Amino acid sequence: MRRDDRNGVALLVLDRPKSRNALSDAMLAALSEALAAIAQDRSVRAVVLAAEGPVFCAGHDLKEMTAHRADPDRGRAYFADLLGRCAGVMQAIVRLPQPVIAAVQGTATAAGCQLVASCDLAIAAADARFCTPGVSIGLFCSTPMVALSRAVASKHAMEMLLTGDLIGAEDALRFGLINRIVAPGAERDEALALAGRIADRSAVAIRFGKAAFYRQRELPLAEAYQYAAEVMTENMLSRDAEEGIGAFVEKRTPRWEDR
Amino acid sequence: MRRDDRNGVALLVLDRPKSRNALSDAMLAALSEALAAIAQDRSVRAVVLAAEGPVFCAGHDLKEMTAHRADPDRGRAYFADLLGRCAGVMQAIVRLPQPVIAAVQGTATAAGCQLVASCDLAIAAADARFCTPGVSIGLFCSTPMVALSRAVASKHAMEMLLTGDLIGAEDALRFGLINRIVAPGAERDEALALAGRIADRSAVAIRFGKAAFYRQRELPLAEAYQYAAEVMTENMLSRDAEEGIGAFVEKRTPRWEDR
Amino acid sequence: MRRDDRNGVALLVLDRPKSRNALSDAMLAALSEALAAIAQDRSVRAVVLAAEGPVFCAGHDLKEMTAHRADPDRGRAYFADLLGRCAGVMQAIVRLPQPVIAAVQGTATAAGCQLVASCDLAIAAADARFCTPGVSIGLFCSTPMVALSRAVASKHAMEMLLTGDLIGAEDALRFGLINRIVAPGAERDEALALAGRIADRSAVAIRFGKAAFYRQRELPLAEAYQYAAEVMTENMLSRDAEEGIGAFVEKRTPRWEDR
Repeated sequence: MRRDDRNGVALLVLDRPKSRNALSDAMLAALSEALAAIAQDRSVRAVVLAAEGPVFCAGHDLKEMTAHRADPDRGRAYFADLLGRCAGVMQAIVRLPQPVIAAVQGTATAAGCQLVASCDLAIAAADARFCTPGVSIGLFCSTPMVALSRAVASKHAMEMLLTGDLIGAEDALRFGLINRIVAPGAERDEALALAGRIADRSAVAIRFGKAAFYRQRELPLAEAYQYAAEVMTENMLSRDAEEGIGAFVEKRTPRWEDR
Repeated sequence: MRRDDRNGVALLVLDRPKSRNALSDAMLAALSEALAAIAQDRSVRAVVLAAEGPVFCAGHDLKEMTAHRADPDRGRAYFADLLGRCAGVMQAIVRLPQPVIAAVQGTATAAGCQLVASCDLAIAAADARFCTPGVSIGLFCSTPMVALSRAVASKHAMEMLLTGDLIGAEDALRFGLINRIVAPGAERDEALALAGRIADRSAVAIRFGKAAFYRQRELPLAEAYQYAAEVMTENMLSRDAEEGIGAFVEKRTPRWEDR
Repeated sequence: MRRDDRNGVALLVLDRPKSRNALSDAMLAALSEALAAIAQDRSVRAVVLAAEGPVFCAGHDLKEMTAHRADPDRGRAYFADLLGRCAGVMQAIVRLPQPVIAAVQGTATAAGCQLVASCDLAIAAADARFCTPGVSIGLFCSTPMVALSRAVASKHAMEMLLTGDLIGAEDALRFGLINRIVAPGAERDEALALAGRIADRSAVAIRFGKAAFYRQRELPLAEAYQYAAEVMTENMLSRDAEEGIGAFVEKRTPRWEDR
């Protein structure tokens, strides 16, 4: 896992193309550490998650998993722990104060597709492909489905989960799994440009808003409004809102906190 | 705020184009009163919410809000009250017994976009545009997001919320934020025609159904079915269902209650 | 109701075209029995639900319902029981261990549209049409809306429910109500082919996954992940996962249990 920071944007790159960027124990640990560090780093205002090679991310490392079948408990403890760690990484993306944009090249498979579904936004190359192929190996993509079913309509999620078929970028766009399609090779630059534009916005406002987005979504309407109104009142009292609204009224460029 | 009633359809028009139909204290009060009156008015069977000028609705009145920064509490009490009142108007649309159709011309911004998202249906001019630009002024559109995230897929909502960018009518249609695009200038007539057709249906059935729609959506599947079956049983025992089914079987036009 | 089994796929056919395949007491009982039998039948790995005639399914049998208005309680007990039985059939599709694919020809109306929305996947003829027309007969499609509003975006569901208008296959595809459109007459073969491909996958994995899909969807994110991780751990310890992953690593065809 590589990290490059520039102008408030952290670029995280899955850089194990030979192992198809599989979410091995080592890769999950690296992702987890990188996200934890970014969560504390006020200099980072947006994140791009990209990958090297023909596969964005192939999901779990099946060989590593299979080796644990030799454990005294046939791997039960390891599998439970692994899936918990992986779900932890996915939720760390959701809980990260900064927006995360996936830049998808090649194929995003199983937990790799879950990574894309878990990001706030996603840009994909026109030849990118997505699948949740667990049914073909006897292991339904049950944890990937948690993220997938919150990103796309039920019948679209079910089509991917029950067939395991690869879908192209056009279908992923139609389903709402990704936000934009660009020419192959342009996905990372496009994601960085989008991240750059988001980095120019108020990081304080985005911190308030991103956390509230995922929380309010799980509440009934009336509670969601009560909670969101409290968040927005706090946001209104922040220096960034005062500066931002002042700049808007005075038609000048705002100067954000932490920048 | 202007109200014109014709043939069971109430047309509400935001008519402060010079202040971009902002949801000032006065505008919120007018909307709230108009909706409360309609809720009690059995002669109204459908509502169209339209606006005058190049802006459908610009959201909150920032100058009015900013003035309250001079309050002893820096505006906290006012902001909380304002956001509560605004959320109340949005929920009044959702709770209104009659369907509400937005007829969107020009730009629907922030809480103006929330108005569109809160309506049951929306017709937009081909040149209408939508945005939740709070991130650009340091104030995330947290309450608009409550309605937006219940209308469109997560990545679509996040794209609007994190970038603040204007989206066109085609994207709004693709996201499911609006139902139909018409030629600029035709949106109000189209919404009125649609409202007229809905007004020809059974208002009793729609009253049962609209309330049940938003309530069942927040329940687990089994509970939702139990609740909806109870609602539908009551509906079946109403005069309108007896008349409507009778007319259908006898191939004649039904005569609805309250009409 | 006819049932034909071939190669692990059960084809259920609504075969009362003269009564427009209405969900009469008899039809509901037949569907309920067929689904209960399939739920216990390990030889069935996927189900196709099709119909004969120009109408896929016209929803409830209005004449049968109307006859019960002569009951001492004006039909209340019958209506409540009927809607409960119908909701039971819809939930039996959702709870069925095997995936169910609707093959829609002609018109799917009211509870007939609910059948399509309740299936895991749906293939439709290019000239298939869908509607929830209860508003036209004074009886809002409240129970159909439970399934419909979980399949498509709110404004799409509301458009169908408030207007009662027929929508074509293209709109149904855009809404996410169906997965695929085929030439008229090809819908059953296409659904059978898709079912056949699903039947080649691990039925054990699909059993784990389908049940988890609908359950996790109703949980908050963190709970959904915890639950899905437990399900996937059990799945991983099943013989099919061991065989499937082994076959994948060894590049051979897996031999599933129950096949």
